Amino acid sequence: MKDLTIIGGGPAAITAAIYAARAKMTITLVTEELGGYLTKTDKIENYPGFKTITGLELTKALEEHLKSYDVEIIEDETVKTVKQENNEVITELENGQILKSKIAIIATGSKRKKLGIKGEQEFANKGITYCAVCDGSLFQDQEVAVIGGSYAGTKSAMYLSKIAKKVYIIEIQNELSGEELLIEQVKKTENIEVITGAKTLEIYGDEYVKGLKYETNNETKNLEVQGISIEIGLIPNSEITNVEKNKEGKIIVTDDMKTSSNKIFAAGDVNNKGKEQIIIAAAQGCIAALKTKEELK
Amino acid sequence: MKDLTIIGGGPAAITAAIYAARAKMTITLVTEELGGYLTKTDKIENYPGFKTITGLELTKALEEHLKSYDVEIIEDETVKTVKQENNEVITELENGQILKSKIAIIATGSKRKKLGIKGEQEFANKGITYCAVCDGSLFQDQEVAVIGGSYAGTKSAMYLSKIAKKVYIIEIQNELSGEELLIEQVKKTENIEVITGAKTLEIYGDEYVKGLKYETNNETKNLEVQGISIEIGLIPNSEITNVEKNKEGKIIVTDDMKTSSNKIFAAGDVNNKGKEQIIIAAAQGCIAALKTKEELK
Repeated sequence: MKDLTIIGGGPAAITAAIYAARAKMTITLVTEELGGYLTKTDKIENYPGFKTITGLELTKALEEHLKSYDVEIIEDETVKTVKQENNEVITELENGQILKSKIAIIATGSKRKKLGIKGEQEFANKGITYCAVCDGSLFQDQEVAVIGGSYAGTKSAMYLSKIAKKVYIIEIQNELSGEELLIEQVKKTENIEVITGAKTLEIYGDEYVKGLKYETNNETKNLEVQGISIEIGLIPNSEITNVEKNKEGKIIVTDDMKTSSNKIFAAGDVNNKGKEQIIIAAAQGCIAALKTKEELK
Repeated sequence: MKDLTIIGGGPAAITAAIYAARAKMTITLVTEELGGYLTKTDKIENYPGFKTITGLELTKALEEHLKSYDVEIIEDETVKTVKQENNEVITELENGQILKSKIAIIATGSKRKKLGIKGEQEFANKGITYCAVCDGSLFQDQEVAVIGGSYAGTKSAMYLSKIAKKVYIIEIQNELSGEELLIEQVKKTENIEVITGAKTLEIYGDEYVKGLKYETNNETKNLEVQGISIEIGLIPNSEITNVEKNKEGKIIVTDDMKTSSNKIFAAGDVNNKGKEQIIIAAAQGCIAALKTKEELK
């Protein structure tokens, strides 16, 4: 039995592992993919110390940092459940493997929300993506729509504007939101057109996406596009646990990253204190590791 | 009048500036020294993304990151007071200059605590240091004592062990504390000797330090050393403001880094949520910047 199981592979999980290893805890880190959401991120300009770095480069730096310590890493595996039983934590993997530990940190982050409209399921991977950076190259010289005009949507639109012929941003609110710098860049980019106050109703096509329908000022309009990137927000990857959550499904934590189970902690975007920023997720991983160490003493 | 004044130059201040600049706020950052406490730090191994980096190298990376944005930087200047007057913040510098802004973030960090014993003032800079990394080279091949055996003390002892002939750690508690990895390294290092349960009473010498007296098991003992590094904790640099503080002088903040003045925020080790970790200070700078932006809207 190890001291600590860390579930996740992004900045929160990796920072927790580095700090816990320096505190000489024995650790298993289990993740579907090291880097987590970072691997789906293009250019990062707000992680202090790196003026500009890609998500993959930062993943590599974090991975190298992590692997300089004595941490057992289980990659390419999915966790089914994490629960506290008496004074230990049982983590069950999809492959049937059981990990037992004295304490656990859940740092599983979040995934893209779905629209829940007609055509969305039908054309998934047939022109619809939830990760512009992963799939953007498919849209070379095409016309594409980004649905959602907040931080993630504006970032994806900027990325796609360098690949696609034309990028539309469809935003339900009356203005873009997120970082002012990104909004300014979007507005200056000639092949991006912003359509606000527009609610996406339906995605249509034959074999592949051919367009979408949206409503604006009580009128239904057609937009012909060959690709659609959906960026309407995130939902926490919190199904694996029964600890207390808020109505958005985010794990409720104290300032010390403690959940309602006293042997289970949660760090990063899976909890209700996450803010979708790498630096904050990493700091929460640090706090969780320092506190689990205290707890074991 | 600028939107934001940031007081300080360490990781919290620089991260706040980067985020605020990306949010298109107008900013003045005023600091005695960019890097702040980092410039007094040797090897850093727990800032995620850098397996090993010196304090000066990380300062340089942060400075370059900061200077890629449009931020007015006032260096080598000391702030005398920061206060809210009606709906603006007035920052007065020692040189008489007045900065006015809509909002401010205090990120002035902390400095080393003094022992308050006989000889401490007399031999300051005559063998006594509060920054082993700054002054360690003076102790080449000498015998030195590090007073304090927690995180900072064990880190300084490791640093000095490569320069001095012999390093004593004098710790008042019965065991070392801080990071287990550092404690293990200290114990493995042949020229470090740990003396626990020992209270330092007095520092003596003639022109320079010649030794110290300490009490252990009701007995007073002498230790002959030519250098002394005092590492017994930190006190926040919070004298410049009258916002609410706790009994240690740390500025009391909410989760959003708000102080008792609604236009003054505080991030990093100057507040009661700081934990003397770079990653946490940086994250707090990020949170403060995001919240000041909301506040201005």
